[in-house]
Amino acid sequence: MKKIEFIRNILEANEIIARRNQQLLDRHKVFAINIMSSPGAGKTSLIQQTLTRLKGRLSIAVVEGDVASTVDAEKVQSDAKAVIQINTRNMPESCSLMAAMIESALKDIPLDDIDLLLIENVGNLICPSEFILGEHKRVVISSLPEGDDKPIKYPLIFIDADAVIINKVDLLPHVDFDIDAFRHSVAGLHPETEIFELSCKTGEGVDRWCSWILAQVKSYATKQ
Amino acid sequence: MKKIEFIRNILEANEIIARRNQQLLDRHKVFAINIMSSPGAGKTSLIQQTLTRLKGRLSIAVVEGDVASTVDAEKVQSDAKAVIQINTRNMPESCSLMAAMIESALKDIPLDDIDLLLIENVGNLICPSEFILGEHKRVVISSLPEGDDKPIKYPLIFIDADAVIINKVDLLPHVDFDIDAFRHSVAGLHPETEIFELSCKTGEGVDRWCSWILAQVKSYATKQ
Repeated sequence: MKKIEFIRNILEANEIIARRNQQLLDRHKVFAINIMSSPGAGKTSLIQQTLTRLKGRLSIAVVEGDVASTVDAEKVQSDAKAVIQINTRNMPESCSLMAAMIESALKDIPLDDIDLLLIENVGNLICPSEFILGEHKRVVISSLPEGDDKPIKYPLIFIDADAVIINKVDLLPHVDFDIDAFRHSVAGLHPETEIFELSCKTGEGVDRWCSWILAQVKSYATKQ
Repeated sequence: MKKIEFIRNILEANEIIARRNQQLLDRHKVFAINIMSSPGAGKTSLIQQTLTRLKGRLSIAVVEGDVASTVDAEKVQSDAKAVIQINTRNMPESCSLMAAMIESALKDIPLDDIDLLLIENVGNLICPSEFILGEHKRVVISSLPEGDDKPIKYPLIFIDADAVIINKVDLLPHVDFDIDAFRHSVAGLHPETEIFELSCKTGEGVDRWCSWILAQVKSYATKQ
């Protein structure tokens, strides 16, 4: 079928560029994390918290992916070594970042001056699961108000996640969300996934997430 | 450019089928609403509330669009005249319903026995904005925990919305959401959009939404 073949070509081309991105990052010893979620689940808040808490310990650059606007880039600007905004609105594939967009962003990032690249993908639980970008780890955020059935409804993005963050735990008394059921669904898709329960609003649980990042970056640096 | 041309062909083909769907619906005097939102914003809950409150006044069928699972179809089954589940997981375009999927679903719906078709699109603020399905009205749900910046970040889906629902207003004391700022952004994109503030959990505000539907169906029926 013509269309399926065409999509396969896009995915293959994306993988080639993603591999090239990772080689470039590895040459400069930059660890990269692709952060994905629904709109409003807390990607930007998590990046803000991470930047604040790891200040002085890691030098961090951020790529902000959005259909439109620069509001997220403005929010993280003060604490990041560099921030690149990508707007996908007029691109043929607007529902996800793609490796070619990251390749272009990497040209404007001082790779020798950073240890970590945080990539905030477009708010979407479907498209980003199809496109690797060259990242070393993939993280999915689910927030309590979205409900605990997201791994069942959007399995692909959870199957490939190295870590899953349950955000907005401060809302637990006010919403229906069964954390055990959610953990069980995630484990059923990918048993090795690390799961973090936290609130970017209150800060609860964010230290454990930051410790995980530090450990990941350290382990990566010793391997290079 | 080859890819853009290819996408244009998909959109054109989709529009032709959507127009055919609407003609079929009009022949049977069925009013159709396409309901779109982020994952977990409350599409299924809104449909459940609508079915319960309009029972005995309108005969309603539901199409449930999801990447995977049948959990939503099961939730609405008891009060709908017919429920059709569409899973987009293995389809070339998995991030939105498309007109061809609705065309196929309409074959299994007793069109002469219903007044209203509620179509729950795939949870996504990007792809569904590109594909009309044959619906008469387009509705977008935004929920408070997602934040008030969604119209700025995902303008396309709001530009074409006939109605926008602000759901989960019961969470207002616990989240940062500026309802006036949100209303202002929506009005900036499409001044005629009807805006409803409600909570599918407490039921607050749902009656106004149901009255709007009744008025829409009545006005449609007199025109046919």
